[in-house]
Amino acid sequence: MILADDQIQNHNQSETTSHRNELSQLTNLLSERGKNPESILRRLTGFQVAIPSWALGAGGTRFGRFSIGGEPRNLHEKIEDIGLIHALNCSSGAVSLHIPWDIPKDTDAIKEHASGLGIHFDAVNSNTFQDQPKQEHSYKFGSLSHTKKEVRNQAVHHNIEVIEYGKKLGSKALTVWLADGSNFPGQQNLRKTLNRTLQSLSEIYASMPYNWKLLIEYKPFEPNFYSMVIPDWGTSFLLANSVGERAKTLVDLGHHLPNTNIEQIVATLMFEGKLGGFHFNDSKYADDDLTAGSIKPYQLFLIFCELVDGIDNGNNDDFSNIDWMIDASHNTKDPLEDLLQSVEAIQTAFAKALLVDRNRLEEAREENDVVLAQEVLQDAWATDVRPLIRESRIKSGGAANPIQLFRDLQVRKTLIKERGIGTAATGL
Amino acid sequence: MILADDQIQNHNQSETTSHRNELSQLTNLLSERGKNPESILRRLTGFQVAIPSWALGAGGTRFGRFSIGGEPRNLHEKIEDIGLIHALNCSSGAVSLHIPWDIPKDTDAIKEHASGLGIHFDAVNSNTFQDQPKQEHSYKFGSLSHTKKEVRNQAVHHNIEVIEYGKKLGSKALTVWLADGSNFPGQQNLRKTLNRTLQSLSEIYASMPYNWKLLIEYKPFEPNFYSMVIPDWGTSFLLANSVGERAKTLVDLGHHLPNTNIEQIVATLMFEGKLGGFHFNDSKYADDDLTAGSIKPYQLFLIFCELVDGIDNGNNDDFSNIDWMIDASHNTKDPLEDLLQSVEAIQTAFAKALLVDRNRLEEAREENDVVLAQEVLQDAWATDVRPLIRESRIKSGGAANPIQLFRDLQVRKTLIKERGIGTAATGL
Amino acid sequence: MILADDQIQNHNQSETTSHRNELSQLTNLLSERGKNPESILRRLTGFQVAIPSWALGAGGTRFGRFSIGGEPRNLHEKIEDIGLIHALNCSSGAVSLHIPWDIPKDTDAIKEHASGLGIHFDAVNSNTFQDQPKQEHSYKFGSLSHTKKEVRNQAVHHNIEVIEYGKKLGSKALTVWLADGSNFPGQQNLRKTLNRTLQSLSEIYASMPYNWKLLIEYKPFEPNFYSMVIPDWGTSFLLANSVGERAKTLVDLGHHLPNTNIEQIVATLMFEGKLGGFHFNDSKYADDDLTAGSIKPYQLFLIFCELVDGIDNGNNDDFSNIDWMIDASHNTKDPLEDLLQSVEAIQTAFAKALLVDRNRLEEAREENDVVLAQEVLQDAWATDVRPLIRESRIKSGGAANPIQLFRDLQVRKTLIKERGIGTAATGL
Amino acid sequence: MILADDQIQNHNQSETTSHRNELSQLTNLLSERGKNPESILRRLTGFQVAIPSWALGAGGTRFGRFSIGGEPRNLHEKIEDIGLIHALNCSSGAVSLHIPWDIPKDTDAIKEHASGLGIHFDAVNSNTFQDQPKQEHSYKFGSLSHTKKEVRNQAVHHNIEVIEYGKKLGSKALTVWLADGSNFPGQQNLRKTLNRTLQSLSEIYASMPYNWKLLIEYKPFEPNFYSMVIPDWGTSFLLANSVGERAKTLVDLGHHLPNTNIEQIVATLMFEGKLGGFHFNDSKYADDDLTAGSIKPYQLFLIFCELVDGIDNGNNDDFSNIDWMIDASHNTKDPLEDLLQSVEAIQTAFAKALLVDRNRLEEAREENDVVLAQEVLQDAWATDVRPLIRESRIKSGGAANPIQLFRDLQVRKTLIKERGIGTAATGL
Repeated sequence: MILADDQIQNHNQSETTSHRNELSQLTNLLSERGKNPESILRRLTGFQVAIPSWALGAGGTRFGRFSIGGEPRNLHEKIEDIGLIHALNCSSGAVSLHIPWDIPKDTDAIKEHASGLGIHFDAVNSNTFQDQPKQEHSYKFGSLSHTKKEVRNQAVHHNIEVIEYGKKLGSKALTVWLADGSNFPGQQNLRKTLNRTLQSLSEIYASMPYNWKLLIEYKPFEPNFYSMVIPDWGTSFLLANSVGERAKTLVDLGHHLPNTNIEQIVATLMFEGKLGGFHFNDSKYADDDLTAGSIKPYQLFLIFCELVDGIDNGNNDDFSNIDWMIDASHNTKDPLEDLLQSVEAIQTAFAKALLVDRNRLEEAREENDVVLAQEVLQDAWATDVRPLIRESRIKSGGAANPIQLFRDLQVRKTLIKERGIGTAATGL
Repeated sequence: MILADDQIQNHNQSETTSHRNELSQLTNLLSERGKNPESILRRLTGFQVAIPSWALGAGGTRFGRFSIGGEPRNLHEKIEDIGLIHALNCSSGAVSLHIPWDIPKDTDAIKEHASGLGIHFDAVNSNTFQDQPKQEHSYKFGSLSHTKKEVRNQAVHHNIEVIEYGKKLGSKALTVWLADGSNFPGQQNLRKTLNRTLQSLSEIYASMPYNWKLLIEYKPFEPNFYSMVIPDWGTSFLLANSVGERAKTLVDLGHHLPNTNIEQIVATLMFEGKLGGFHFNDSKYADDDLTAGSIKPYQLFLIFCELVDGIDNGNNDDFSNIDWMIDASHNTKDPLEDLLQSVEAIQTAFAKALLVDRNRLEEAREENDVVLAQEVLQDAWATDVRPLIRESRIKSGGAANPIQLFRDLQVRKTLIKERGIGTAATGL
Repeated sequence: MILADDQIQNHNQSETTSHRNELSQLTNLLSERGKNPESILRRLTGFQVAIPSWALGAGGTRFGRFSIGGEPRNLHEKIEDIGLIHALNCSSGAVSLHIPWDIPKDTDAIKEHASGLGIHFDAVNSNTFQDQPKQEHSYKFGSLSHTKKEVRNQAVHHNIEVIEYGKKLGSKALTVWLADGSNFPGQQNLRKTLNRTLQSLSEIYASMPYNWKLLIEYKPFEPNFYSMVIPDWGTSFLLANSVGERAKTLVDLGHHLPNTNIEQIVATLMFEGKLGGFHFNDSKYADDDLTAGSIKPYQLFLIFCELVDGIDNGNNDDFSNIDWMIDASHNTKDPLEDLLQSVEAIQTAFAKALLVDRNRLEEAREENDVVLAQEVLQDAWATDVRPLIRESRIKSGGAANPIQLFRDLQVRKTLIKERGIGTAATGL
Repeated sequence: MILADDQIQNHNQSETTSHRNELSQLTNLLSERGKNPESILRRLTGFQVAIPSWALGAGGTRFGRFSIGGEPRNLHEKIEDIGLIHALNCSSGAVSLHIPWDIPKDTDAIKEHASGLGIHFDAVNSNTFQDQPKQEHSYKFGSLSHTKKEVRNQAVHHNIEVIEYGKKLGSKALTVWLADGSNFPGQQNLRKTLNRTLQSLSEIYASMPYNWKLLIEYKPFEPNFYSMVIPDWGTSFLLANSVGERAKTLVDLGHHLPNTNIEQIVATLMFEGKLGGFHFNDSKYADDDLTAGSIKPYQLFLIFCELVDGIDNGNNDDFSNIDWMIDASHNTKDPLEDLLQSVEAIQTAFAKALLVDRNRLEEAREENDVVLAQEVLQDAWATDVRPLIRESRIKSGGAANPIQLFRDLQVRKTLIKERGIGTAATGL
């Protein structure tokens, strides 16, 4: 299903008056505070968040999965779905591909299809946490860190294959999330396992084009429940440092122990120039993979404060140098609506971070005026920036209210009609 | 596959000398400390832990599942597997049945089969967290707590059906684990949801035979990630109190927030006479469902200290009044070996708890001699009780070293031959 | 130091124009959405949060304490400080007294002093977690739960003494926070300890006037690090149920294990009519006692959503039936500024909760429209309600911008001049 | 108070028969399993754990402190107390000094005093988390990371002063535990703060003798409750790498977020040759500073498994290359008894780790025989090694049962007589 431009225009017109009104109130307010709404709008508009190819169907837990209906049956339809999202919000013009769930058989056709919808290919993702039919060696006991050379070789080779697909599609980064680890004390020699991981990653790195990044994800537990080979940012950082300059750490918001100060990790990685990518989602307990901003919206804002500060003042080039992706699971929501909510929450956090009065904040910090520093930060945070987000969408040709339009147009119903009720997208 | 008595006897003979030697050293030691090894042996021998019908195949995570081979293809074979375990350790003479994964078509035949292997039927378990084919209403948004009366009715009816199966098999308890909950703030009216749960449980309770118990499980998260209708022991206790005298709380070791003092919960429930059942497993992070005693063996010991004390001195009848079950997932271990390890770890914790010098401990407590109280407790804990566990098995006709014998007899290989490599047992 | 009315009026005039402007924009917006700004203002204005007498000086950690200067030297000065806060925000017209840190020697004089500043006496707090000079028995190993009858008697008697002070001052509730517990496994008989606690609380309850409430606080750890006698809401609820109808649970936001869903606990307690009081603060890790709303403002909003819903639709009378108190520690901020920030954050959460479109929300919940439920909730949450909070203050005679005025008037400097730089208030 | 040799000898004689008996049974068992008890004894005997000078009096929490009586009044008496412990267990022949709590006025006299008791000086500790009388700049808002150059200079200078004391006493390492951090989002520029910390540590490093180590401790929270400048091993590792080769990470067992896999951190640091020191204690919730082995003895064993493996097979020289220290707080136990329990628990974990059949374990790991790997590990763990620990003490001239003798000799009573009941040792 592809949206027609006038469907969006019609929708926007119905929202115009109140939106214009709210927008002008907000821009006046911002101007009074010395902020330039135009420059904020520009940065918002330029900010694109990739949609993962594995998150367009219903997700599930180990206890079950409830289908949503109309799920994309192949890569072509997945990109079509991302096209729908992007048409509505104009901020999701990228896909993060997962191999082998979404092997592009005809790369040229897929590329053209995506390009026609304004979508480019962000980081590609390998999968060595599941066995595929006809696979020679099992990953039951690990992949890049496996005790057996032949299994490691197979996993390294799979990653190189993924790079090959990525090259054809225009990707510039490989994301490695390693599920390797152990379930029981004693099961693994932890030092040897780390060493084998390092060797395997080095081989993969050596096979990457010179202008690619290797994004090394970390996660404290699941699917292994005693140790993971890359459990925390420190290990990812250590590996990235050993492997090479273009190896970087990828932060997934859901991959931290309880109470972790994630924004500080972001700041530290930016200090070292080692923040390579981001997986957005939200969680209350573990790797819950919930809609971004649904549980801890203030944390998301604090993270963007570090991102904005780190890019504007740190050892980092610019926002486009970091790979921005969503990584979520949609167990009970419509995946497309969920993704629209996630992107809006991310934009909101970004916009608010841009509103922070940095000069006043730095003065307060310099003088250890703790109360004032909080006031300055929360002044930006308390501001209702929704008119700005809306304006950014409208200006780019998107919908004033994407979810409303999605429902008005009965998109899901149409997808079910097109694809059937019992379809199940590959992915999690 | 059924073990022949002489297979076990032959194995035991090969272990006799060293075992006798170690046993006599231990019993001498215990006698010197005023302990009666015979009475400990009696309690060990009488202690049976039920095996869940859903844990005899390979478990999995939402990321994948790696088959073990030779998995039981039906309830008959599942009971056969439990028979194998019980023949080896003489401490697993019960099965906890899960409906509808393991509907006994011919209850008489199944009962006879089980009985022939020395196995009786412990608590039966309902399942309203998955949709079954041809089910009228979906449990996607809840079951006993659902907003719609018709869904709640269906779920209540399912539980009553489970009770009917249980009655035929000789069960005396129904375990309700409710996956109901919500993934996002706002999704549910928390008070109304609790109230609906209470009403549904009351209906089920009213349908139970007069001598049955209703075991109400609790869990803080998964498969719902913002709220669970029965997230903690307090809510289970509140519901059990409202529902009726024979409604009790079931403690699953893996269902607690980080750092929870589980042994204190056990003590509190015993103080109130509301501890109804136990699900053994171990975990480091969340509901990891690992082998009992593999991660926090000292915690398991502390829990048994409360259990022994609560039964010997509290408002509770005896050990047979509590339903003891394992609830684990076997992602990388052979399920049967894993279950053998779990039972042994549970017995070890029990035996050590029986060794505690209660009089000296209570004296130290009374005088707040903190150092001495720890010494007394850890004196029991430090003792190597393996000869006692072994003796308890041998005396009952089990194997001195169950896992060793399991491997010597190549049980798994035989099961694969009998059942095939690609079988997948119903369950998690 | 006492603020003159015209100091506040002058301040407010300087803020008038922009405030009127922002306010009318907001009230227009709310009216369009069918909300009645006047009724929200009324509820905001009527909502008072008590200031604890122990939180007016610099707090500290076990590693040290850094004085702020000008700290109140006695109860009279503490009430003066609360008077300052209340004059500025008109929402802190109550004090929660701690005995024996703040024994009112001349109760009539103190009452008159407070009353002159518009302050009444909320719940009184006992202290059996520290030894006082000349105290006969030590609380080193517990108080209400102590193994020795004479220590329990002393602790019970102290609580009765606190009630006596409270009666003279017009309090209507006693808050019991019990630090009792153990540091090591084995140290205490957990069942007996719980039982002794229950007996002691029953004695205290029997000594309360018929129209008083007994508020039972819970806390998972600190200052005891293995077990606390009342570790969680379940235990507090169990005790409150056993002790009597006017025994209720007090929720302190900082007293929960990592990841606890506190709003659900609030909902459950309101379902049972057992929510008696509230201690506001915020935390990231443990009992951090930080400024309310500084770490998890969204959680604070969700809690107020439950409070509003529970009072408007549940088994609870009204907001005035619950004791609202702040319980924080001010290690690096000026305590008065910190308290002003806390109260504002609490009011903000309250105001946003009042903005929630309850009818639409309940409809979405009824239909399990998860996306819409989140949208409705976050619509209220995203609204910038600061003009409303400001208006509520101005209307009641308070300051448009309390912290700004506090600084403009150099209150701290004056207090230091009056009281000295090296003063240290009693408290934590 | 100094123990006479014959006091220990008399005690040991009374324990001889049963000890000899138990020891021979154990050594027979070990020999049968191919283990050399003599070599284990040698390693046990050679292993010394330093006692911190701040842990010889009663500890406390922010809520209070309960004196124990007879606490050492000065450094001389502190070393005397360590002398007592070392005389009893022969495994505590070192002190870790804290400056400025324990400034040695006459270093030669102190050194001679210590040396006479068999005690040498392990790592020295600086303190920039408290203000000392007459200190020019306050550490309220940080020390090595402070925004003001003059505060950082003062803190650097203090550390250099500590090194000077250490040089005179024979220390070879400086431990820096940095309490710096922030309590509120926004308070600090996290990147700049990290950078300032790095600069300050580099200055300190440059002032160290060529054969000294700089041990960089990390801690996730307390006394700051939003961010700590060195919150985790990754940050400590990053700083140590940047500062220089002899800068290493110090692991304090209590300084981790919930559920952290500490043994894996140990393995990773050993893999990188960056494990510099260890602070032993135990905890259930936060930095509880409890007796080692009192809460999670199995975790302590797993850590020692990594230590033994890392030293025997990794990039690390030997055990003497790592600084072993206790860091605990004794709120309710007699500090000397508590320290005796801690050292015994540490030795127990060490002894059990030495018992692990490494060859069989590595084979099982290589083949991913998860069940067997656990069996091999737990076989060592289940062994009752107390006779070996006792023998190691007796052979070195210590007491068979240190706590028993400590009580028989009424050491605490004597100390109270000598020093008074109301003394309070400097420290925490």
